[in-house]
Amino acid sequence: MTVKIAHTADVQKFFEEVSGLNNDLGSPRMKLVTNRIVNDVARIIEDLQVTPDEFWKAVDYLNRLGSRQEAGLLVAGLGVEHYLDLQLDAQDAEAGISGGTPRTIEGPLYVAGAPMAEGEVRMDDGLDPGTVMFLQGRVLDEQGQPVAGAVVDLWHANTQGTYSYFDSTQSDYNLRRRIVTDAEGRYRARSIVPSGYGCPADGPTQELLDQLGRHGNRPAHIHFFISAPGYRHLTTQINLAGDQYLWDDFAYATRDGLIGELRFVEDAAAADARGVEGRFAEMDFDFQLLNAPKPASEARSKRPRALQDV
Amino acid sequence: MTVKIAHTADVQKFFEEVSGLNNDLGSPRMKLVTNRIVNDVARIIEDLQVTPDEFWKAVDYLNRLGSRQEAGLLVAGLGVEHYLDLQLDAQDAEAGISGGTPRTIEGPLYVAGAPMAEGEVRMDDGLDPGTVMFLQGRVLDEQGQPVAGAVVDLWHANTQGTYSYFDSTQSDYNLRRRIVTDAEGRYRARSIVPSGYGCPADGPTQELLDQLGRHGNRPAHIHFFISAPGYRHLTTQINLAGDQYLWDDFAYATRDGLIGELRFVEDAAAADARGVEGRFAEMDFDFQLLNAPKPASEARSKRPRALQDV
Repeated sequence: MTVKIAHTADVQKFFEEVSGLNNDLGSPRMKLVTNRIVNDVARIIEDLQVTPDEFWKAVDYLNRLGSRQEAGLLVAGLGVEHYLDLQLDAQDAEAGISGGTPRTIEGPLYVAGAPMAEGEVRMDDGLDPGTVMFLQGRVLDEQGQPVAGAVVDLWHANTQGTYSYFDSTQSDYNLRRRIVTDAEGRYRARSIVPSGYGCPADGPTQELLDQLGRHGNRPAHIHFFISAPGYRHLTTQINLAGDQYLWDDFAYATRDGLIGELRFVEDAAAADARGVEGRFAEMDFDFQLLNAPKPASEARSKRPRALQDV
Repeated sequence: MTVKIAHTADVQKFFEEVSGLNNDLGSPRMKLVTNRIVNDVARIIEDLQVTPDEFWKAVDYLNRLGSRQEAGLLVAGLGVEHYLDLQLDAQDAEAGISGGTPRTIEGPLYVAGAPMAEGEVRMDDGLDPGTVMFLQGRVLDEQGQPVAGAVVDLWHANTQGTYSYFDSTQSDYNLRRRIVTDAEGRYRARSIVPSGYGCPADGPTQELLDQLGRHGNRPAHIHFFISAPGYRHLTTQINLAGDQYLWDDFAYATRDGLIGELRFVEDAAAADARGVEGRFAEMDFDFQLLNAPKPASEARSKRPRALQDV
C-alpha cells in the first residue's frame, strides 16, 4: 500500500527546494528539468507502488549501467533514440521539409577523429579474415547533383560484431574512416563485411532486455555521418538486406530507404581486377542531403563522444 | 519547437513493443515500470522541449554518475531518499502506527559485515587525531523497557568527513562496528567526533547541485541500523547539534528527535577515569523500537550494499 503524498503542498514545497527553485544561483533550465524529473519519479513510485527494495535496485542499476558506460546503449534499446528521430521527422513534417536520405540513430559507438582520405580508402587493417567489401556511392543534393567535398564519416563492426576502441583487441580506428567526396560526389571504401552487433551478454542493458523478454541484437550495418557546407548534417546507417535481425533490430534503427544489398562476386577475373583473392562483396549506396535551413543544421548534435588518443 | 507525438497510437504501440508488453517472456512488473518510464521520458522531452543536445548531455551524465558510483548520493541530494521516508511515515500514519525513534535516510556509504562486539567497543583505529567521543545509550521497546541482544550497527565519518572503504586511506571497517546490547539494553562506543560529509567536489552529484545553486554538505552525524527479533528494523542517524549544516543538510536527513548534543569535558580526573588524555566528548542517545507488525519488518531494505572483503 502506497499513500500518495507527492501532490501535497508540503512535498511540492520540498521538491521546489530540492530543485533549487527557491534560490537565485545556478541554471534556471536545470532547475526546471530537475523539478520535473523529481516529481515524475515520485509519481511513478506512488502510481506503481514501487517498494523501497525496487527503488534501491533501480539505483544500483544506474550505478552498474554507468560503470559499464551503457547509458547510450540502453536508450537505444529502449527505443528512446529512435523516438528522437521520430520527433525530428515530425518537426520536419510540420516545417514542410521532406526528402533526402532518412536519418537514423547514431548509437553509442562513434569515435571522433578517424583518419581522413580523399575519395577512397581502405578501412580494415587486414587482420580480420572477413569477406572483402567494396562500398561506393555518391553524395547528392536535393536536385540529385553531386556534392563535392562532402565528408563521409563511416564506422562499422568487424566479423565479431565489435568496434575498434570499444574492443581493445582491434587496432586504432580500425573500420573507421572519413572520406572526402571527389568532384563527382563519390566516396569509395574497401573494407570487410560487418557482422551484426549484440549487446554485451553480461551487461546491464542485456539484463533489462532479458526482463522485458527481448533480445539485444542488431542486423549487420554501417554507420554514417555525412556533412558538407550548406547542407544539413545527416546521421544514418545502411542496414544489410538478408540479415535475420533486419526488421527485428533491438535498437529500431532499420528504416525504409536505409537497406543496402551486398552483391557477392565469385569471379577470378573480377577479383583480379579488384586486387583481391576469392569471393568478395560489392555495394552501392547514394546519399541525398537536404539544404541546411540554418548554419547550425550543418553540424551533428553536441552529444559527448569518444575521442581516441592515438 | 517540439512537436508532440508521444500520445499518438503509433508511438504508444512502439513504446509497448519497446517495453516487451507484446511478448510473453520476462517480467510483467519490469515491463510495466519500463513502459511508464519510457513514456515519462518522452513527455518530459516534449513538455520541456528538451533538445537532442540536452538529451545526450543527460545520457552522458548517467554514464559519469554510475562510473563514480554516485547514483545513491544523487537520490539523497535530490531529496528522493528523504521522500521515501516521508512515504513510509505516511503509510505508518494511515496504519495507525506512531512513536519510536524517527527513521531517516541510510545514505550510500554503509558497508555490511562490520566487526561485532558485546555491549561496548572502540570504533576508531587510533590513527585519526580527532577528539575522543564516548557514545552510549539504550535500546528500548514501546513501553520504555530495555531490549537486550539488539544489534546496534553504527558507522560514521572521520575528521575529514570521509568513510572507511570509500576512503581507501582508512583501515578496514574503521569507524564501523556492530554492538549487541547488554541485559540493560545498553550499547557503548568509544570513537572520535566525526566531521560533516561533503559530496566529492569533482563528482557528478556536486556538478548538478552547483547547477541547482545548492551546496553538497551534511552536518556531522552518526548512522545507525538497529534491529532485534520481534522489533521493527530502524534506519536512523544522530545529527550533531551546533553544526552549521544541521538544518541545511543537502540530503535532508536531519529530523526532530534525531539531534544529539555532545558534552565536551575538560577535566583531568574525568579523562583519567576514562583512560584518555585531554579534552573529550560524551553523548547519550537512546533509541526506541516499535514492535514488528510482521516478520519482514524486522529486516532492513534489500538495498544492494557494499561488503568489504577483508
